[in-house]
Amino acid sequence: MQHETQTTRNNDGLFAVGSPVTHWSVKTSNPVQYEIRACENLLDPENSTILEDAPGTGRRRFVVTDRVVDSLYGERIRAYFEHHGVEHQVLVLDDGETHKSVGAVLKVTEALDAFGVDRRREPVIAFGGGVLMDIVGFAASLYRRSTPFIRIPTTLIGLVDAGVGAKTGVNHNGHKNRLGTYFPADRTLLDRSFLATLDERHISNGLAEILKIALIKDARLFDLLEQHGADVLHTKLQSAAASGPTPADVPVDQRLAARGLHLDPATEVVERAIQGMLEELQPNLWEKVLERVVDYGHTFSPTIEMHALPALLHGEAVAIDMALTTVMAEHRGLVSTYQRDRILEVMARLGLPVWHPLCTPERLGEALRDTVRHRDGKQRLPLPVGIGSAVFVNDVTEAELGSAAEALAGLVAGVSR
Amino acid sequence: MQHETQTTRNNDGLFAVGSPVTHWSVKTSNPVQYEIRACENLLDPENSTILEDAPGTGRRRFVVTDRVVDSLYGERIRAYFEHHGVEHQVLVLDDGETHKSVGAVLKVTEALDAFGVDRRREPVIAFGGGVLMDIVGFAASLYRRSTPFIRIPTTLIGLVDAGVGAKTGVNHNGHKNRLGTYFPADRTLLDRSFLATLDERHISNGLAEILKIALIKDARLFDLLEQHGADVLHTKLQSAAASGPTPADVPVDQRLAARGLHLDPATEVVERAIQGMLEELQPNLWEKVLERVVDYGHTFSPTIEMHALPALLHGEAVAIDMALTTVMAEHRGLVSTYQRDRILEVMARLGLPVWHPLCTPERLGEALRDTVRHRDGKQRLPLPVGIGSAVFVNDVTEAELGSAAEALAGLVAGVSR
Ligand SMILES: NC(=O)c1ccc[n+]([C@@H]2O[C@H](COP(=O)([O-])OP(=O)(O)OC[C@H]3O[C@@H](n4cnc5c(N)ncnc54)[C@H](O)[C@@H]3O)[C@@H](O)[C@H]2O)c1
Ligand SMILES: NC(=O)c1ccc[n+]([C@@H]2O[C@H](COP(=O)([O-])OP(=O)(O)OC[C@H]3O[C@@H](n4cnc5c(N)ncnc54)[C@H](O)[C@@H]3O)[C@@H](O)[C@H]2O)c1
Repeated sequence: MQHETQTTRNNDGLFAVGSPVTHWSVKTSNPVQYEIRACENLLDPENSTILEDAPGTGRRRFVVTDRVVDSLYGERIRAYFEHHGVEHQVLVLDDGETHKSVGAVLKVTEALDAFGVDRRREPVIAFGGGVLMDIVGFAASLYRRSTPFIRIPTTLIGLVDAGVGAKTGVNHNGHKNRLGTYFPADRTLLDRSFLATLDERHISNGLAEILKIALIKDARLFDLLEQHGADVLHTKLQSAAASGPTPADVPVDQRLAARGLHLDPATEVVERAIQGMLEELQPNLWEKVLERVVDYGHTFSPTIEMHALPALLHGEAVAIDMALTTVMAEHRGLVSTYQRDRILEVMARLGLPVWHPLCTPERLGEALRDTVRHRDGKQRLPLPVGIGSAVFVNDVTEAELGSAAEALAGLVAGVSR
Repeated sequence: MQHETQTTRNNDGLFAVGSPVTHWSVKTSNPVQYEIRACENLLDPENSTILEDAPGTGRRRFVVTDRVVDSLYGERIRAYFEHHGVEHQVLVLDDGETHKSVGAVLKVTEALDAFGVDRRREPVIAFGGGVLMDIVGFAASLYRRSTPFIRIPTTLIGLVDAGVGAKTGVNHNGHKNRLGTYFPADRTLLDRSFLATLDERHISNGLAEILKIALIKDARLFDLLEQHGADVLHTKLQSAAASGPTPADVPVDQRLAARGLHLDPATEVVERAIQGMLEELQPNLWEKVLERVVDYGHTFSPTIEMHALPALLHGEAVAIDMALTTVMAEHRGLVSTYQRDRILEVMARLGLPVWHPLCTPERLGEALRDTVRHRDGKQRLPLPVGIGSAVFVNDVTEAELGSAAEALAGLVAGVSR
């Protein structure tokens, strides 16, 4: 059957390749665009941002949130849509990582059936943290093979990570995010005031993903976390926003740098984290390239998180992974002992754990094997190089994992410190 | 919050828009390419086509099929992989439209977990009809947010329709294909010899989708069906393939036309159907344009099919929809009475039903309302114009549906004929 074939192209750019083997080659591409915007007072009835894409009358919106967010903001959410005369329904899901399941996704789709949402012009609105947004985004991507949605993150992980990219998903069969899609929200609206009701542990949780960006690509962000991290944590990022506009006709990097001088730390931390994340995601939104620096902290953490569930939060598992790989990097001479100590010290200031009893060589080996499948047969393990840079390695052994875990345990116990 | 904003672009083409409202705009695009190839003797152990993308040793393949296909071809499938020394596992699903469910999709993903498939380089292989391929494609698209797969259709609907496009999906909550994704197989391998074991009713079923392409865009294909349809049906498309190569350096249309002279009818019918389908799909693979001529026959049929389940096959429901809308087109003067009769006559020759008791004005009205949601608030109903062309209308009333249904019922009963 290995005939020689030749190619002709017809008007539509469709390939039909020569006989006797008839052969079509379909080539096309899916353009995707989405917006992320920092806003204030989103739930103020005078603020029409949420409904910007729904001018006129006869508007309908299907809203999804979780139990905790509903108890805190449900009344204001309903009042907002009522004020605007928008027919709406609010579906309230159970909160928490253990409810990030196919069952929750199906619940959303069945409620969409009952509400009778139009296919493309009635975006579903998700108010909540990473769990809620991952579920709603997944449901929206599957419903009639794609229904637009809007994300309004209410946690710090949501603001700087889950609300920024294109990934949706749920846990399945004991595996973290085993099922999912690439399907960004049309718009993500960031309003930091939601964080005021979040407990500090969940602020720490989000700071872990911010620290990740700092470690792999943004030394200035690391400095900010070192200097202001504790304060940012305790104030729950409720500082005043930027003290007025800066000229918009200068490039963003310079503008951020210039604004940095008079931006409050919380604002600069969030903006740099999002900017850094997006710089990595945009050229690789569908993860065709499997060497991703933003996977730093996500090699061992999926397995640790799922086994420890519900004891560890996502960012906490990521922090433990980063602590372990920082020690590995130190052992390899990529990070100095002084840098290692600065990193672990910042983790402590951000309220993050750096160790968990699940960090046994066997468990870490199991985690690495699953990650290798996920990275297509190679480890592609990002390790920090100094602070603010990273390298990929493929030669990690279980012995190396064991000695890093042991050294980290020692450091935590204060033995070798 | 309606501040004036301005835009600056950084090196990555990422937009960050001016303060005080900070705003990112992410723009990117997902290139997609896939192959469809007509082959012979795919399961011949000497034929390496199925494993072409897996050179070397240590190869592993996860195979999915259904109960009926397994009973007919399971032994040869297993022998094929054994002959090539490929570690494999064959998952056998229940067959039939009623098993096209989320449950079946999850079963595939859990078996993938157990088999431990690599993320990108161990394509899942689906042997089966449209139901099986829709399930496996859906599962592959969700598993680790995308795992490649190969389709080997074993029904005529699979060969000319379900195996050709990008849509995956399952029925849910009583609705046809309510959940799904756009995720084409990397390769579809067409081997018509599988059709030899299919019963005639399922050949008719596939001929319905071929007739659809004929009616909306290919008068020559209609002529072929009129002349040779009965024969193509009874021989189950088992005619000899093309009688030798034609020069491949002439454009495909001319080449097909030239080959038409010495192509057997079954081959020309299949090639034209696939070519016509791909011409429509390629520029609109993600259905951003909701006016699709290939939706002809798919306005009322999803509801009819689901309500009649399991009495009507997919193509049968499509045929009933086409008969009804042909009569509507006749009433509107778009199709002549002579053309209407030719169309209904061809349906009869292809062994297709043209009527079902579910065609009441109420049920048709319900079907239209759901389709309107699916087409974003407009009917966008394709109607035939003569034979080989179509137009979209948005002004169909329940009264018009009722009188078309009544007229069709009369024609079927031979009253007005
Ligand atoms: N899709 C992505 O790219 C991506 C990126 C990072 C993380 N994630 C996922 O995000 C999840 C973690 O996100 P998370 O930490 O936001 O989890 P979460 O959604 O479970 O929120 C944490 C808890 O805070 C509550 N909560 C939410 N908003 C609140 C508020 N304003 N005030 C008080 N309580 C509030 C929630 O009800 C929940 O109990 C993980 O499942 C992770 O896999 C996804
Ligand atoms: N994804 C798409 O773009 C697309 C397009 C058209 C249709 N479809 C879907 O395809 C489905 C209909 O496809 P189908 O008719 O192939 O259904 P099917 O997969 O249920 O196959 C029909 C029957 O034939 C049996 N069978 C399969 N191959 C056989 C063989 N070689 N010999 C004997 N028996 C065999 C099957 O076991 C089944 O019982 C519908 O669910 C429809 O929605 C999808």
